[in-house]
Amino acid sequence: MIVTLSPDAPASTVEHLMSSAISLGLSARVLSYDDGAQVVGIDGSLSIDINQLPGVTTVQVKHKPYMLASREERAPSVVRVGNVRIGGAEPVIMAGPCVVEGRDELICAARAVKAAGATMLRGGAYKPRTSPYAFQGLGEDGLKHLAAAREATGLPVVTEVLEPEQVELVARYADMLQVGARNMQNYPLLRRVGAANKPVLLKRGFSATVDEWLMAAEYILAHGNPNVVLCERGIRGFDPAFRFNLDLNAVPLAKELSHLPVVVDPSHGTGVRSLVAPMSMAALASGADGLIIEVHPNPDLAKCDASQTISPAELATINRRGRALVAALAEDHTLFNLPIELEVILSA
Amino acid sequence: MIVTLSPDAPASTVEHLMSSAISLGLSARVLSYDDGAQVVGIDGSLSIDINQLPGVTTVQVKHKPYMLASREERAPSVVRVGNVRIGGAEPVIMAGPCVVEGRDELICAARAVKAAGATMLRGGAYKPRTSPYAFQGLGEDGLKHLAAAREATGLPVVTEVLEPEQVELVARYADMLQVGARNMQNYPLLRRVGAANKPVLLKRGFSATVDEWLMAAEYILAHGNPNVVLCERGIRGFDPAFRFNLDLNAVPLAKELSHLPVVVDPSHGTGVRSLVAPMSMAALASGADGLIIEVHPNPDLAKCDASQTISPAELATINRRGRALVAALAEDHTLFNLPIELEVILSA
Amino acid sequence: MIVTLSPDAPASTVEHLMSSAISLGLSARVLSYDDGAQVVGIDGSLSIDINQLPGVTTVQVKHKPYMLASREERAPSVVRVGNVRIGGAEPVIMAGPCVVEGRDELICAARAVKAAGATMLRGGAYKPRTSPYAFQGLGEDGLKHLAAAREATGLPVVTEVLEPEQVELVARYADMLQVGARNMQNYPLLRRVGAANKPVLLKRGFSATVDEWLMAAEYILAHGNPNVVLCERGIRGFDPAFRFNLDLNAVPLAKELSHLPVVVDPSHGTGVRSLVAPMSMAALASGADGLIIEVHPNPDLAKCDASQTISPAELATINRRGRALVAALAEDHTLFNLPIELEVILSA
Amino acid sequence: MIVTLSPDAPASTVEHLMSSAISLGLSARVLSYDDGAQVVGIDGSLSIDINQLPGVTTVQVKHKPYMLASREERAPSVVRVGNVRIGGAEPVIMAGPCVVEGRDELICAARAVKAAGATMLRGGAYKPRTSPYAFQGLGEDGLKHLAAAREATGLPVVTEVLEPEQVELVARYADMLQVGARNMQNYPLLRRVGAANKPVLLKRGFSATVDEWLMAAEYILAHGNPNVVLCERGIRGFDPAFRFNLDLNAVPLAKELSHLPVVVDPSHGTGVRSLVAPMSMAALASGADGLIIEVHPNPDLAKCDASQTISPAELATINRRGRALVAALAEDHTLFNLPIELEVILSA
Repeated sequence: MIVTLSPDAPASTVEHLMSSAISLGLSARVLSYDDGAQVVGIDGSLSIDINQLPGVTTVQVKHKPYMLASREERAPSVVRVGNVRIGGAEPVIMAGPCVVEGRDELICAARAVKAAGATMLRGGAYKPRTSPYAFQGLGEDGLKHLAAAREATGLPVVTEVLEPEQVELVARYADMLQVGARNMQNYPLLRRVGAANKPVLLKRGFSATVDEWLMAAEYILAHGNPNVVLCERGIRGFDPAFRFNLDLNAVPLAKELSHLPVVVDPSHGTGVRSLVAPMSMAALASGADGLIIEVHPNPDLAKCDASQTISPAELATINRRGRALVAALAEDHTLFNLPIELEVILSA
Repeated sequence: MIVTLSPDAPASTVEHLMSSAISLGLSARVLSYDDGAQVVGIDGSLSIDINQLPGVTTVQVKHKPYMLASREERAPSVVRVGNVRIGGAEPVIMAGPCVVEGRDELICAARAVKAAGATMLRGGAYKPRTSPYAFQGLGEDGLKHLAAAREATGLPVVTEVLEPEQVELVARYADMLQVGARNMQNYPLLRRVGAANKPVLLKRGFSATVDEWLMAAEYILAHGNPNVVLCERGIRGFDPAFRFNLDLNAVPLAKELSHLPVVVDPSHGTGVRSLVAPMSMAALASGADGLIIEVHPNPDLAKCDASQTISPAELATINRRGRALVAALAEDHTLFNLPIELEVILSA
Repeated sequence: MIVTLSPDAPASTVEHLMSSAISLGLSARVLSYDDGAQVVGIDGSLSIDINQLPGVTTVQVKHKPYMLASREERAPSVVRVGNVRIGGAEPVIMAGPCVVEGRDELICAARAVKAAGATMLRGGAYKPRTSPYAFQGLGEDGLKHLAAAREATGLPVVTEVLEPEQVELVARYADMLQVGARNMQNYPLLRRVGAANKPVLLKRGFSATVDEWLMAAEYILAHGNPNVVLCERGIRGFDPAFRFNLDLNAVPLAKELSHLPVVVDPSHGTGVRSLVAPMSMAALASGADGLIIEVHPNPDLAKCDASQTISPAELATINRRGRALVAALAEDHTLFNLPIELEVILSA
Repeated sequence: MIVTLSPDAPASTVEHLMSSAISLGLSARVLSYDDGAQVVGIDGSLSIDINQLPGVTTVQVKHKPYMLASREERAPSVVRVGNVRIGGAEPVIMAGPCVVEGRDELICAARAVKAAGATMLRGGAYKPRTSPYAFQGLGEDGLKHLAAAREATGLPVVTEVLEPEQVELVARYADMLQVGARNMQNYPLLRRVGAANKPVLLKRGFSATVDEWLMAAEYILAHGNPNVVLCERGIRGFDPAFRFNLDLNAVPLAKELSHLPVVVDPSHGTGVRSLVAPMSMAALASGADGLIIEVHPNPDLAKCDASQTISPAELATINRRGRALVAALAEDHTLFNLPIELEVILSA
């Protein structure tokens, strides 16, 4: 059962719902959104007349298993990261190097992506690497460099957190916590970022169904953190031409099923530099709320993922063409009406 | 070895190339494009000095195995179907019912999709069905209805051909021959449509790599038919939320590797009605030259594929928004220049 | 509706069933097995009391869509090819080169595989090749060589047929017609081999579900040919270590759903020589009725598929170990009873 | 560079190798096997003459990236869990309920699987669940019940550990630590079990390549734990008939590339009860060193995964048939020689 409350609902309503649930042996949880709305999710049904309680907006008895992530009970959410709004009219562009290589290099890269139109900075301090012998990132030094780059440019920072114990440390430096594809079903980590007071970027596991992805988001929401952004980053496929298969079908489906914003990573999603620009356009056209792209001042020298990394100049093109595309679709949407000939035929 | 010839190349050049190849025991073939250009593909290297022959434009010694389909030797092709150009500035919109249900119904559907912006009519007279007991289409009657609908609306017609012996019959009625996904590697069929004088729409097999798709196109080109349009229509995936996984990554990759136009089928590609519109936008943004969409005046009553069929009104929206999107991307492309801040950083 | 008839059912029963169906506008078909049993499949239900008709064994009103292939109405079938029984106690071992290279070479290969334990000879006269420029087989000459090898060794011959018009020609030389994976849903071809009087080996398409595979078999059965053997040959997967992913799960599932015998092709199914032997053992242990294996007297010199071709000596090992394995499982099956300790616990 | 040392190598050899590596700035690690052998893996090449050092058996300069897991430097390993040897002549049979439901129920289940032939007990105390609202296991109480069941039956216990901080606690009760498929690339967890003194069962991620799986094992080995057993448990596939696609191809490939033992989980690997027995036989025939199977005294009442859980009686059959199969293959292996006819042909 999902109960949504208006911002002016009295505390007594929440208390009443929670105590009624507990008295029936049902587990329940409250999620408070930044816009003041509250949602109570209950693993079962209460016998009281909920609609009578002050401040109750809707009551859903039948719903998806991801009750807090579901679109059934909430209009599309906007997640704020610093001064950036994800899920609003403007697409967010997160860009930066795969891995933080050094303080000066990072500040240089941050300035370049900002000039190219990026609104957030990405970069890895802790890197999940397939090989135990590969470079695993600079760790806390990397986090410090990210904070320095934010200071230099004003761009909010998103970076990956790999294990529950790192959450507190990473949250001290970063503006947004990224949970990587390999960790999409690392439940202890999901619980810990669910208890953190920073927004979370949740990448889709590379063989996760959309339902499993939303259930992973539900773990974070159920632990009290309302600020979750989904990120499609490619699934496993059979064609060796691609490192991964960017699955844009998941974008409109996730937005149909959930109120959470969705961004797309065309860099990991294809693994092919020349496909990053066209798939960025496709992602925005499919309804994505933004992009996260690997950019390096000198892509061929990038310490990891060079073959999928683009230059700031290419990012500038993506940014400008992407914004033109979003504007064209938005304008057209407003002006929509049927062609007269079709109206005639359909009304015949 | 690929040799390209200008439209004014004398016949003697082709003859010389062919006889040189034959004298070395190499097989060779000539392909003549509608724009007058000619390409000679030879399975090996000639010892003569080809660049000296009159009318020779380029000579490629190393090339992809799909030598005639390759982008290496030819700028993007435009394929004409009646008065429609596929691969030009305007996207082609092919639309119509999954299966031809009757003469009057089809003419009604054709009028509706035309009013909604479609520039070609699609519809199945011969249907490949998983079950031997399912409706297999109206056959030649269906072809006659398609011809009648073309007469009533002026829309050129594309329809599927299932076996080599049908090619002649279908070509008598249709403007474009469709080879379905299940037949992408039906080589006798590819050879026969390669010898037909009608353009061919070649759907990607639902577990074919892009390389295999281009090799299938090569069969058609190698038999003399230069007018091939590729069609991405979804691949097999693991998420039961989709009937197929529309693989837009294949669009920019195919256009990078080949000069052939590419259209996208978001209806079969997703199997989900609500995803047809967003994935249509994504397809055009990824660089597709057009769309092929299942449309029925009353989608829920469609005799097959109802769950992925949209209404003419939805098509009208897709058409208008799609054209706005293509225009926005085209205009932006023309005006491209770097933001000044980025120029400063990059030149530093 | 499926009606099964005993071998002694009078012709009048079949006639009555067929005319009743026709009078209701239902399509119907009769399939006669070599053991004398007959099955009538009707696309709907008759109103007459069928159980009263003489010779009727069973009547199934609810059944799978592949009514003739279904296990619901028939015990596991045995298909005879010459003196070989497929589906009986002994596994069939089909072996031979990928492609027929010449008369003497083939006879030499046939003698070697026979000495190594093979009971049927395989070899391609018509080859489906991804590239139009690759060697496409010797055609009718290849068929003649296969017939000569049969005469020299007594081994029945299975070879691929690529298009409907070839069926008659290939059936003149071969003992069994192979429909390849690329043609699993080539319905005109399925209909034609369904009308031929030779048994058919139907390979699974490399992204076909088991249901789709059985529906393809149904096409052959519905056109009157009861002698169909299924062949699992690997599906598309994401790991580049394998050419295809041999999907043994499909073997016990197909045998649970259908009465048709199933053989396995570990050569195409893995594409890796060193995996052919262990996956052959696994195939037989999963319940397969036999194997089809690419063998060449000198694997490294094979004209195609060299990397997955094994030597006759390796085949001899597979044959001997495979027969030992099948015997061990058969014997154990006969002697089955529960351990006493478990009986005590379960009866407690 | 991989250097293997005999059991009688003096400590000075290891010290010399490590200090030489450090002086060149190379990282290096020593792994000590239970049989006394030692392996030193160095991320680069030393300039000293290693073969002169006392106790050095082999030196490999070129090798796979998973240097410690590689078959290149070590014969197949045997991993001991209590009195059970995994990787020896006898297959290990791990069996038990999906999740520990209670003390008495577990002891009853443990007795039943032991009577049916199981040599290890499996059962989940901490369960990774797709939904945050599903039953997550009994936690430490579950561990205590497992220990009680071991005491009652003598069966060593394997159970899953979900996060780094749990490792110490789980290791206190369990004989073997299981890392689940969702955590195959949870590197902090891999490092922690790599530092534990208990053997580890490493499940393959459900879209991991064999190479990625071996690299995950390498993390554990590189942190000092030589006792790793690989477990194939099914990959994602497109056929909805299966929950997962058990990928037996991975078994012989992993054993060809690595010295680590491999077991197979046909329960999760198929998700279908009726496929567990045939795929168990197939797994053993493919070369697996054992099985891990979900068994419940009353499968239909199992608290999770009921549709893939079998009864103790079915396990008894699998156990007996499986051992018969392994014995038949082992015996045949010993007696191997070529058929005389084939020898004549091959020597001609």
